[in-house]
This record gives sequence, structure tokens and C-alpha cells, in this order.
Amino acid sequence: MKSLLVVGSVAYDSVTTGSGSRRNALGGSAMYFSVSSSFFSEVSIVAVVGEDFSSDDHGFLSGRGIDLSGLEIAEGKTFRWEGVYDPTNVNYRETIDTQLNVFGDFSPKLANSHRKSDFLFLANIDPTLQLQVLKQMTRRPKLVALDTMNFWIDDHRESLAKTIENVDVLFMDEEEVKSFTGEENVIRAAKAARDMGPRILVVKKGEHGVLLFNEGDVFAAPAFPLDNVIDPTGAGDSFAGGFMGYLANVGDLSAEGFRRASIIGSVMGSFAVEGFSAERFQSLKHEEIDERFRGIAGITAFKPLDNDEKLPKRSSLKMGK
Amino acid sequence: MKSLLVVGSVAYDSVTTGSGSRRNALGGSAMYFSVSSSFFSEVSIVAVVGEDFSSDDHGFLSGRGIDLSGLEIAEGKTFRWEGVYDPTNVNYRETIDTQLNVFGDFSPKLANSHRKSDFLFLANIDPTLQLQVLKQMTRRPKLVALDTMNFWIDDHRESLAKTIENVDVLFMDEEEVKSFTGEENVIRAAKAARDMGPRILVVKKGEHGVLLFNEGDVFAAPAFPLDNVIDPTGAGDSFAGGFMGYLANVGDLSAEGFRRASIIGSVMGSFAVEGFSAERFQSLKHEEIDERFRGIAGITAFKPLDNDEKLPKRSSLKMGK
Repeated sequence: MKSLLVVGSVAYDSVTTGSGSRRNALGGSAMYFSVSSSFFSEVSIVAVVGEDFSSDDHGFLSGRGIDLSGLEIAEGKTFRWEGVYDPTNVNYRETIDTQLNVFGDFSPKLANSHRKSDFLFLANIDPTLQLQVLKQMTRRPKLVALDTMNFWIDDHRESLAKTIENVDVLFMDEEEVKSFTGEENVIRAAKAARDMGPRILVVKKGEHGVLLFNEGDVFAAPAFPLDNVIDPTGAGDSFAGGFMGYLANVGDLSAEGFRRASIIGSVMGSFAVEGFSAERFQSLKHEEIDERFRGIAGITAFKPLDNDEKLPKRSSLKMGK
Repeated sequence: MKSLLVVGSVAYDSVTTGSGSRRNALGGSAMYFSVSSSFFSEVSIVAVVGEDFSSDDHGFLSGRGIDLSGLEIAEGKTFRWEGVYDPTNVNYRETIDTQLNVFGDFSPKLANSHRKSDFLFLANIDPTLQLQVLKQMTRRPKLVALDTMNFWIDDHRESLAKTIENVDVLFMDEEEVKSFTGEENVIRAAKAARDMGPRILVVKKGEHGVLLFNEGDVFAAPAFPLDNVIDPTGAGDSFAGGFMGYLANVGDLSAEGFRRASIIGSVMGSFAVEGFSAERFQSLKHEEIDERFRGIAGITAFKPLDNDEKLPKRSSLKMGK
């Protein structure tokens, strides 16, 4: 098993959806990522929280076996975010309030043990900080993945472009990669994004699944069909957690390895949205993960053509009749 | 091979997209469906055109082996539609002009030979007419499929609901099935639509592929990834043509048969949008269809879990640490 490090946010989220609400529940990109990946791999967090960070939440994360030696406790309050999702359509949300608090001065400093990590996930933070983290590594990790958001794409494009030159895997929403590259067609957008550095692009399409572009390999992974999404917050980071946690476990960076990683990401994202905060992960069993993995295999399988098989044709084509 | 009948429109379309434009090019739901299905099955059209319908277009269709004995030539002009697609995003289009012409009085009357068809596709026309067609069949076809559009869903809901009670396969866009059922979640919307009669629902999601709901079976078929869509007109009818043409050929109405039919539909839809009108179908070879079918198999395949295989877990979970 390889070592896995995530640098990102740990937050308190207040979220309202059509299914209910939570006040100041554990959130943040590094939290979702680490909890999701902890099912597959040891994982270390580098992040900052305030003095108000509860010992229960600390206990939950360490109870999942997550290395919290890089979780700095700074003077002040933990990053807070408040959002409301459209009660009838979870694809739309409004941010009510953002209080950066101690996260506003976050400048990640890596301990020596973390500088040698084999797998690195740069969760959605300022691309300048993401690059600083990368520069602190004593050796190039085997795999560096990066997530970002529209704010950095729109307003810090140059800094983001400079940072992604140095990563292997780029995660973006479909709209993000189109806006980042100026290409409305996702295939052309993927090519343009990969031309900027990352050899692998994962285009996240929410309920439509993901498209994985890995050098010449294209892979379409569907989302697991859910009839009840409780809270979409953290789906993308949970996807990335399953993806990277699996790869760190098996160390298989073949095209086939990345395909399986995408399905596992899809599975973990589907669990994330079945509860507020990390609630669904608290009761999640490995048997359920395996079952959902088999479920996605089941909804995508069809009988392929054998080597010399052809599809049936009309038997009596009378040309020029 | 079973007999296949389509009832719908044959039109002259004037279309402008980011890739160019065509004036009065062959169009219409029954045209796209029959040309697409003709690669797999004999197919008969019931539709109406005007006296202006060109002998070249008649020759093209009959040259594809399509039975045109049910193509009525009425006094007046052929149905005309004019639309402009957003030059940078083919998902948006504006209708500039619609002239129903002879199609405004279309009241399909089936010849005796057509009343015994095994497979029937009711393309997008007034649901009252769709039901009239069904009532003219001397025996219940083995498979009846129906396509519709937002106009009938919004303004003729009762008539549509009454008609779909009698069909096996319902084709709808994702937005259409949500608006028809009042369910924002596609899984719940699919259940609600199937509760109204059709045992099979095909939810068309454009570049995101289709979801097939077949009793307890759910199948996700991706779209074939294209980096250049010339003209999206007719994609849905070409999908239905591949789907029904394949089924009429093999007569396999198992869950596996419908899965393959969905992939073949996806393949034929992808060819339809690579040219204006039916242009791409004019040069299309069976080898290209097989190759694209293999291509979709390639972009969706991943290593499933063997019978007793489990996904790898973190090796050293220290609970409560």
C-alpha cells in the first residue's frame, strides 16, 4: 500500500435540501476525501481548523484511521459555509454565507513524513497554494491529482494553468472544463485541458456519471442510479477519495486501474449524497461498497461482439429499386 | 425477420447549425427512423407528403429498400420546418417556421398488409392519431413503441396518457419524462411513467446517452463520444430506428436484447448527427456500424468483480484510535 496525502479544507457546513437540514455539520473537501479514501487506504490530512473544532469530530476522523498529525488547530474559528439546495432539483444551490475564518490564512506546511507521500490529492484551494504544496514534496509523488472550482477558473486562470502543468490527474465538472478551455464540445474540451499538462482528465457530470480521458483511453462511468439524493455536498471529493484511495491501495496505474478507480469513485460519490455531511459513511460497510460496484457493472453490461461476429443486417436489400 | 412499420412525418427541413446549413432537405421522424432501421430490417412507412416531394428523395428512400406503399402523396405541399441551432451549443435550438401543409390533415389509414406488422413505431404525432393507428392493427403487434414531444406532454396530456396505456416502449427526453410525471429525480420519474402503462421506458439524454428501464432491469448506455456534431436533428428517431430495426431482425425481446438494441440505437444516433438530413447514412457501411458498436463496448468496459472477489480494503484500520 502507498501513502496518500490530501491538502484541502475541513469545515462546518450548514446545509438545507429538500430532505431536511443540518447546522454546523462536519464538511470540507479534505474531510469528504479522507473519509471516502479511508475505506481503501491509509490517508493523511493537511488542513486547518479553529479552536471550536469539536473533539467528537476529531474523534470521528481519527476513528476512521485518518492521520490527523497535519490538521493544524489555529486561533479563531473553523471555516463555515452555508448553502441551500433547490428543494425539487438538487443540481441547483445557492450559497447563503461563507466565513473563511482560519482558512483565510491557510498556508499549508508539510511535515517531513508527508513530503514523501506517494499519492497526493490537491483539493479545491487557491492554485498558488496547491503549487506550494507540490514544491514541498521531497520527491515527485507517483500520482498527483487536483480538483478546483469555477472561482479559480474564472478569476485565477493563469495561476491555475501554471499549477495544472504539474499534475497527473485533473478533476473538473463538465461546465468547468468547457469554461476553462472555451470549448463547448466535451471531447474537444478534454483534449484542450490535457494539452495543458494533466495526462488524465476526469470530467464529472453529476447524475450522468464521469468521463475519464487517459491519454488515448476514453471511459464512460455512469453514476449509480439513486431515487433519493439527500445532500449532494461532497460528492466530488468523495468520488476523488474512492478513486485515489483505490489507486493508492493497489498501485495499479494502468488504463484498467484508472477505469476501476472511476467506478469506485462513482460508488463512493453515490454513498456521500445519501446523507448529510459524512453521515452515510458512518454506517457504511465494505459489503455495501462491493454490492454497489457490482451494481454498476450490472447496469452497464451488454453482450459485446465476438472477434469475428457482425451485427445482423437486413436480409434483402434491393438497391436502386 | 419480423415486419416493422413506422407512422410519422416526412418533411423538408431548413436547418442552420454552427457547421453550415441546408434548405428544404429531407427530414421528418418517419424518414430518420426508416433510414436508420433499414440497415437492420425491412421497414414500411405510413406518412403523407405533398406534390412537391421530389423523385430524388423518393428514390433515395426506396433505394434503401424502404416500403413506400403507405407514403400518401396529397394535394398541396410537404410539411416544412425551419430551425436554427446555437452555433456554439447544439443543445439549444430555435424554431423559425413551421408549415404543416398536407401534414395538418394527416389521418393515417393502414393498408391490410401493414395492419399485421409485428413491430410498430408510433413516431411523434398527435397522440390521438397514434391511438387510431394502434386500433387499426388486426392483431396486437409483438412490440409497440411510441415517441412524443413537449407539445403533446404540455397541452394534450390526457390524450397522451390514454395512448401510452397501450404501448410497450415509451421514448422520452429526460426533461420530458420529468415534466410529464412531475418528478425531478429520473429514477422516480421512470417509475411513474412506467406505472402509466409502458413496461419499457427509454430516457434519452443526448450526449449523456440513454437510460433503459425495462421492468426491474436498468441499463445505462453512453452516447458515442463525438468531437464534432454537425446537425442534431433526427438523433432521437435514428436511435429509435436502430433500436427497433435490430429487435425486428433478431426478435429477441429479452432484457439482453433490449440492452443491445439500446447500444445500436446509440450508434445510429451518433451517425445521424454527423451530417445534415440523412447525408451521413448515404455513405454508411455496416463495417462502420460494427466498429462503433465495438467502440461503445470499449469505452464502457471495466474489470468486474469475480464471484467471490472483494474490493481491496485498507489493511490496517485501527478503530477508535
